[in-house]
Amino acid sequence: MEERGYLHRVQYYETDQMGIVHHSNYIRWFEEARTDFLRRAGAGYDCMEREGIVSPVVSVVSRYHSPARFGQTVSVAVRVTGYNGVRLTVEYRVKDSETGTLLCTGQSEHCFLKNGRPVALKRAEPEYDGILRGCLAAAEEEKAPSLSLRS
Amino acid sequence: MEERGYLHRVQYYETDQMGIVHHSNYIRWFEEARTDFLRRAGAGYDCMEREGIVSPVVSVVSRYHSPARFGQTVSVAVRVTGYNGVRLTVEYRVKDSETGTLLCTGQSEHCFLKNGRPVALKRAEPEYDGILRGCLAAAEEEKAPSLSLRS
Amino acid sequence: MEERGYLHRVQYYETDQMGIVHHSNYIRWFEEARTDFLRRAGAGYDCMEREGIVSPVVSVVSRYHSPARFGQTVSVAVRVTGYNGVRLTVEYRVKDSETGTLLCTGQSEHCFLKNGRPVALKRAEPEYDGILRGCLAAAEEEKAPSLSLRS
Amino acid sequence: MEERGYLHRVQYYETDQMGIVHHSNYIRWFEEARTDFLRRAGAGYDCMEREGIVSPVVSVVSRYHSPARFGQTVSVAVRVTGYNGVRLTVEYRVKDSETGTLLCTGQSEHCFLKNGRPVALKRAEPEYDGILRGCLAAAEEEKAPSLSLRS
Repeated sequence: MEERGYLHRVQYYETDQMGIVHHSNYIRWFEEARTDFLRRAGAGYDCMEREGIVSPVVSVVSRYHSPARFGQTVSVAVRVTGYNGVRLTVEYRVKDSETGTLLCTGQSEHCFLKNGRPVALKRAEPEYDGILRGCLAAAEEEKAPSLSLRS
Repeated sequence: MEERGYLHRVQYYETDQMGIVHHSNYIRWFEEARTDFLRRAGAGYDCMEREGIVSPVVSVVSRYHSPARFGQTVSVAVRVTGYNGVRLTVEYRVKDSETGTLLCTGQSEHCFLKNGRPVALKRAEPEYDGILRGCLAAAEEEKAPSLSLRS
Repeated sequence: MEERGYLHRVQYYETDQMGIVHHSNYIRWFEEARTDFLRRAGAGYDCMEREGIVSPVVSVVSRYHSPARFGQTVSVAVRVTGYNGVRLTVEYRVKDSETGTLLCTGQSEHCFLKNGRPVALKRAEPEYDGILRGCLAAAEEEKAPSLSLRS
Repeated sequence: MEERGYLHRVQYYETDQMGIVHHSNYIRWFEEARTDFLRRAGAGYDCMEREGIVSPVVSVVSRYHSPARFGQTVSVAVRVTGYNGVRLTVEYRVKDSETGTLLCTGQSEHCFLKNGRPVALKRAEPEYDGILRGCLAAAEEEKAPSLSLRS
């Protein structure tokens, strides 16, 4: 069962003249939900940056299913779907928080830099490495039952 | 040979605390370059919207190769890589306008709506349909020689 | 005593390369807090727009006292300081929600349009008119005791 | 006679569901025009930041006269109206670049920091100090004739 996800109330300044949320804002909601998720997991960006680690986005994909509108509250479910010590993959499902209507799905990939150079978290920051491995394991476990149900 | 592309000067408000352009802004630059390209081709969004046609984004992909920074001017090359009357695919290459360094590549897909419903441009707006077919043909022609060079 | 105010968690995409929140975002937080305040009061923008009323910003002022940073949660206190049936004035105080440090103060003025023309809410929308008069009266009452204390 | 000013083409992502440019974007256009103006004058932000100087915004005022819309190109005239070595005041006039219709006027104030502390440019950066004094003198001179015409 999917967790409730990060809640974001759609803002007026996020709309465009089509009367819907401008598509670039979903990319920002992914970031909102991701930083919230990682902070709760103990690997907040602010903590990492204090250690001199930054985590730039390597790629992002977003598919728009149904437009979000001003006045809606959306929920963004976050799932770590890949982590190998040097690269992190995160998936997102944006839904209307009341009706559950799927609005947008997406994925982002991230690397880790220290002093401007790629860094393996396992060595440089074993604590963060452990947390991210834990997030990945939890997401895989969560997914396993639903897979077995299908067989 | 690739055309020069749409020029955009990186703004201070587009940077984030990593000291680079926030990744969500490239999605906006794609739009800037796409609307500029289509306006020059005769299929501007403002004209289309006056006819009651809107063109929402169906999906977007962005790959970040090298970070853009404040003070740089970037060029965004636009190429129509797909159009079938109901859906449009556009590709982007963002480079440093001086050095030619590749910063970002991306793709967006668009559909067309009239009165909130999907519309086939061929029937509803034959002029726009012709323009977009022309853009696709031009991009394919442009690509053809480089393909033959490789063989 | 000032009410707690609307809470907003500072987002990474709101920072700039100075390492602080870009000043344009406070204007957006004013809007977030204002729309939240009016919705709770029963005069939400979405309801008004359904009646064909839009409320453009006529002016905005913002004074930056101390920079907000990623990771902070700010509280935005909202107070209706003027309303005469055709124009609304709202004031804002943005504080760090934990320490209470004052970050920013501001003011915005708004008019009301129906079909693109200025409209007097008293006639056109007596219910909204009443709500806004109530907000103004409440803010004046709230302020009164503190004034009398000073005398 | 007022100079032509910095040109900005209104982008789709700058509109909101009122069908006009969201008011927060004018604050960003002020910055676009100001950084362009200062770069041309020889006091670009990127140069200053390389010297360790940052220039946060202390206050901003914006008055909205007529809404800008997608498809328009606006011109932003910039004038340095105050500079005393520690604080800079800049004024803006945003017009439709074709019709000259006044869209927005504004003002911003800036201080200068080095290592997080206020700095007097006269001592710390005499070159920038001289440039800003020159901008102020030029703006005052430019204004003088028009004042004398009125007398």
